[in-house]
Amino acid sequence: MSLIVQKYGGTSVGSLARIRHVADKVIAAKEAGHDVVVVVSAMSGDTDRLVDLAYGIAVEPCGREYAMLVSTGEQVSMSLLAMCLVEQGHQAVSMTGWQAGIFTDELSRKARITDVDNSNVNKQLANGNIVIVAGFQGIDEQGNITTLGRGGSDTTAVALAASLEADECQIYTDVDGVYTADPRVVPEARRLPQITFEEMLEMAGVGAKVLQKRAVEVAGKLKAPLRVLSSFEEGPGTLITFEESPMEKPVVSGIAFNRNEAKLTVVGVPDKPGIASKILAPIGLANIDVDMIIQNVSADGGTDFTFTVGREEYQQAHDILKAVAKEIGAKGVRGNQKIAKISLVGVGMRTNSGVAQKMFTILGAENINIQLVSTSEIKVTVVIDEKYMELGVRALHAGFELGVEPKEEFDPIKPNVASKNAASTATDEKLI
Amino acid sequence: MSLIVQKYGGTSVGSLARIRHVADKVIAAKEAGHDVVVVVSAMSGDTDRLVDLAYGIAVEPCGREYAMLVSTGEQVSMSLLAMCLVEQGHQAVSMTGWQAGIFTDELSRKARITDVDNSNVNKQLANGNIVIVAGFQGIDEQGNITTLGRGGSDTTAVALAASLEADECQIYTDVDGVYTADPRVVPEARRLPQITFEEMLEMAGVGAKVLQKRAVEVAGKLKAPLRVLSSFEEGPGTLITFEESPMEKPVVSGIAFNRNEAKLTVVGVPDKPGIASKILAPIGLANIDVDMIIQNVSADGGTDFTFTVGREEYQQAHDILKAVAKEIGAKGVRGNQKIAKISLVGVGMRTNSGVAQKMFTILGAENINIQLVSTSEIKVTVVIDEKYMELGVRALHAGFELGVEPKEEFDPIKPNVASKNAASTATDEKLI
Repeated sequence: MSLIVQKYGGTSVGSLARIRHVADKVIAAKEAGHDVVVVVSAMSGDTDRLVDLAYGIAVEPCGREYAMLVSTGEQVSMSLLAMCLVEQGHQAVSMTGWQAGIFTDELSRKARITDVDNSNVNKQLANGNIVIVAGFQGIDEQGNITTLGRGGSDTTAVALAASLEADECQIYTDVDGVYTADPRVVPEARRLPQITFEEMLEMAGVGAKVLQKRAVEVAGKLKAPLRVLSSFEEGPGTLITFEESPMEKPVVSGIAFNRNEAKLTVVGVPDKPGIASKILAPIGLANIDVDMIIQNVSADGGTDFTFTVGREEYQQAHDILKAVAKEIGAKGVRGNQKIAKISLVGVGMRTNSGVAQKMFTILGAENINIQLVSTSEIKVTVVIDEKYMELGVRALHAGFELGVEPKEEFDPIKPNVASKNAASTATDEKLI
Repeated sequence: MSLIVQKYGGTSVGSLARIRHVADKVIAAKEAGHDVVVVVSAMSGDTDRLVDLAYGIAVEPCGREYAMLVSTGEQVSMSLLAMCLVEQGHQAVSMTGWQAGIFTDELSRKARITDVDNSNVNKQLANGNIVIVAGFQGIDEQGNITTLGRGGSDTTAVALAASLEADECQIYTDVDGVYTADPRVVPEARRLPQITFEEMLEMAGVGAKVLQKRAVEVAGKLKAPLRVLSSFEEGPGTLITFEESPMEKPVVSGIAFNRNEAKLTVVGVPDKPGIASKILAPIGLANIDVDMIIQNVSADGGTDFTFTVGREEYQQAHDILKAVAKEIGAKGVRGNQKIAKISLVGVGMRTNSGVAQKMFTILGAENINIQLVSTSEIKVTVVIDEKYMELGVRALHAGFELGVEPKEEFDPIKPNVASKNAASTATDEKLI
């Protein structure tokens, strides 16, 4: 007997018909002999309705009460799913976050899970029940209801799966897996049968919306085996693994991109020690997350200090920087909201230099100017003018041959060596 | 410092504007120096929306999950009210049933409060908070969320008031008090400044919708001082007292009526001991509440056995009786759904005979035939053809002079005896 945790997002439970469809999938898993724990989000639209009520009654809704209000969304969807399962002759119980033992810190609206007491869930599983748990919510030490912030249902599922030592945590969503790039931009994009946890983390961090970064972090920390699947289509989805497969290690696994950021440069900063922290400290105090940071010595001896922020925080950051620039004697502040960020991600980069160089060559061939670059062990990120984003992504997808199914290095039918050569030829001949 | 428990029904919190209005009333009580606990129902319409979802997904929604679903309605209204209070600079916290320590038995959809652990509420009051509690819900010993059934918010307020030893439990509703009769039927009906608990119980039991009978029962058992007031208009409302005032003891305090019942008669029942229980036992097993029961020896030696049930249970009861009648050798079953029930209620009846006689005379003068009669110490109830209901109620209201403000027996300005005589003359001249 194995234990599976399934998570269904808001679109998957967005209507009574869809809840019935989810019930069918849950029943199929139960009838295949698994113990099943299901984590659900609120019905799509319901959270927005509740948020509208909150902002209709208060300009700045009290955090504790906001969590109290919004957490009702999952309580509705979970009880409807449980009803549907009971109606079809199965044993099912729904549980709120506190009933399922999801403990969090006290940040009402952006709480983090601190502990899972799975005794209640385990008891209900032992009684033969399918257990439906409200995603996105928990309880703090004082007994207040908390919410985990957007995407929190994924985190609930992952934390529960880890605590229950589930055999698999299946995240059902409206796409059928993780792709080499967003198929809406790159029609040739290919679903990845698997991806490493580190790659997934980098992908989520730079805009691949399949999984929330926080959920991937928790999965990584707790070593919960994750799979992303579609609620609407059958298929194996994408498995997020903790070991790198020795069989298949492409240099680049996928391309992530977004245009949700903006770039700010403090121009002509006097080149003194500690100047970077003088610039970034007030930004941090305003709770603005800073992403790429680049410092260049400029021609006239001063330094240009550049970083990116979320676009919705651009104006606030700009205002702060203008004051800072004056204070530290810099020449001024320059900003640009029309940027896009593109990242290549792949664990193969560790042992394969030249990815950045090839990336620059491909973009250069399309006359796309690179404004910023940053690299990590398994990622190269560039910032370009946003109007070239689609062009750049498609060129990189083609240039790195991400649409081509990688051939397995081991093939029992053909002789091993021949197959290996064929594969490397196929890969090499399109390298610039 | 006194403690007030206020309860606002679904209409009173039916929109954001109305919630703001409730917040004003709560703040006024707080600023008058009271500790305030507020019990709220779900926003009007919200419960219906949730019930529709439940019956959309299941023909017979599982009770546990139904309570889980429907209890979100109060969680929404309470958090919105708390937000509104916080936004206006007051300290307020909302609490679900379980957070407020409302313990119930395990009948998910019709649970009864078994205990109140007020420690959490008291702690928050001691911290200077206005405490908003979800009505209509609690938690059973297994930690399942339960609901109290329709009107349960009144019961929550009364039970909390008793547990906290509140100075007053104020039930805010869409009428400004308890009337001598429903003003929609009797325009001359008069608001009663006070009514005894026993009278209120009888009134609630026979269709006066101001307070749920269960809430009045709990108030009586726990001796919680109750007041019914309007959410929309200023005014003292009606105080429900536990002592009968020596000053004012009208024979009849009010008239209650309803047309929600139906009458069933098993005709020609063989006159043997134990036959009544043979008829009523299967009705009780089907969870059908029986109200008036009358047994008459009929002309041909057998007995006619008559009782009333809720109209929505008429068909089911009729089917059961047909089988029972055959089994016990009765002649048949007769039924009538077009009946109405009218009751006169008043503690003065205890010491004043002739009320029933006067009632029959007034109805007889209007050519209204009386089908059934039952009496208690402080109530006389008749069943008549439903088409005469309004006529009968108005005739009784006029005949018993309920629209006339009763004069106080003690009047310090005029000589005592003269005033007494004037009052009794005014009363007597309209008898019969």
